[in-house]
Amino acid sequence: MVGYLQDELTAADLAAERALYEPFTHSVRNLIDATVQTLASAEEIRAAQAEIEAITARLQGAGLDGPYGCRFNADGVSRHWGNAVIGLRNPIAPPVMTEHDPADRDRLWADFTLGAAYEGPPSLVHGGVISSILDQLLGEVASQAGKPGMTGTLTVRYRQGTPLGPVRGEAWVEGTEGFKTFTRGHLLGPDGVTAEAEGIFILPKWART
Amino acid sequence: MVGYLQDELTAADLAAERALYEPFTHSVRNLIDATVQTLASAEEIRAAQAEIEAITARLQGAGLDGPYGCRFNADGVSRHWGNAVIGLRNPIAPPVMTEHDPADRDRLWADFTLGAAYEGPPSLVHGGVISSILDQLLGEVASQAGKPGMTGTLTVRYRQGTPLGPVRGEAWVEGTEGFKTFTRGHLLGPDGVTAEAEGIFILPKWART
Repeated sequence: MVGYLQDELTAADLAAERALYEPFTHSVRNLIDATVQTLASAEEIRAAQAEIEAITARLQGAGLDGPYGCRFNADGVSRHWGNAVIGLRNPIAPPVMTEHDPADRDRLWADFTLGAAYEGPPSLVHGGVISSILDQLLGEVASQAGKPGMTGTLTVRYRQGTPLGPVRGEAWVEGTEGFKTFTRGHLLGPDGVTAEAEGIFILPKWART
Repeated sequence: MVGYLQDELTAADLAAERALYEPFTHSVRNLIDATVQTLASAEEIRAAQAEIEAITARLQGAGLDGPYGCRFNADGVSRHWGNAVIGLRNPIAPPVMTEHDPADRDRLWADFTLGAAYEGPPSLVHGGVISSILDQLLGEVASQAGKPGMTGTLTVRYRQGTPLGPVRGEAWVEGTEGFKTFTRGHLLGPDGVTAEAEGIFILPKWART
């Protein structure tokens, strides 16, 4: 399949890549916030722009032609480091890092912080960012439970605004039916559940055996 | 309401701000892509990180304490420049810039490009990014038709993968019922409709008269 790549990185190589890219990507996340929030003068902004363009040119001098894709090393460890919601190397991703109890693969959760770059209505998380994170959590719990799939249908019910700041997400598997997995989840803000979601995830035809 | 701010910018001030911030934000978007895609050496990445941290510190030296919010000038022109999907000053936003026929305010469309930073499944747009953009389009068409609201329910049906690259979005108003507005829309890739959505948008209590 397009975009699935295997390489020969060892566990030590992976640890080194993570140690390099995590703080680098974090620095770009902070720059994103500063871009939304800065009140610096026009001169300072133009100077920053010129420097950013020079850095980008250097980084792109040696770069992938396309997206990051999904990479596996020889041990079968996968890296979705370009993913828009969870990607270690993607500054757009908050990132949402999920956790689970190894004894219960049908459930996961994530604690993360959404700052100025995730705004929709003033001071609230964008409804689309909410649906985006819920899509990821609901799809990931299906995958974690051994039933990976592409999103078939996602329904989100918004109960109250989600203030920008610390947010918790939870997702769990409701059941399966042939190639379909049904999952649910919600986000929690300081005043409890802010949005609830249900999803149907479908195993791609090429992955069926 | 929190986050709604009025200022005294003139039309000329606004044009000047736009001319300053649009290319600046664009440069940060290019840096985001380079962050996902670079194959530069560890030394080069560490050097880039140090420079980015210095730029960020300068920009944040004078900056907003919180999110951008929604700002109005004296003419009533609103700016959602921090918005995660459409924000002129938000590097996370593609941005999605909608267009409409002034004779038909019940319909809008947008053409935009989604690069490496919007990946979900390899080489495809993240299902959550799709829901995020549809949430924005469906909410915006409600607002454009004179019936603004917060998302109540959003349902997205995914018909086929959306390849990264140029994408078109369309949305329209289906009807209204009291404080609720019902809207629909879809995204189109090179092979036609990739995802369809329906939304219910609800006028906030504080905005009811």
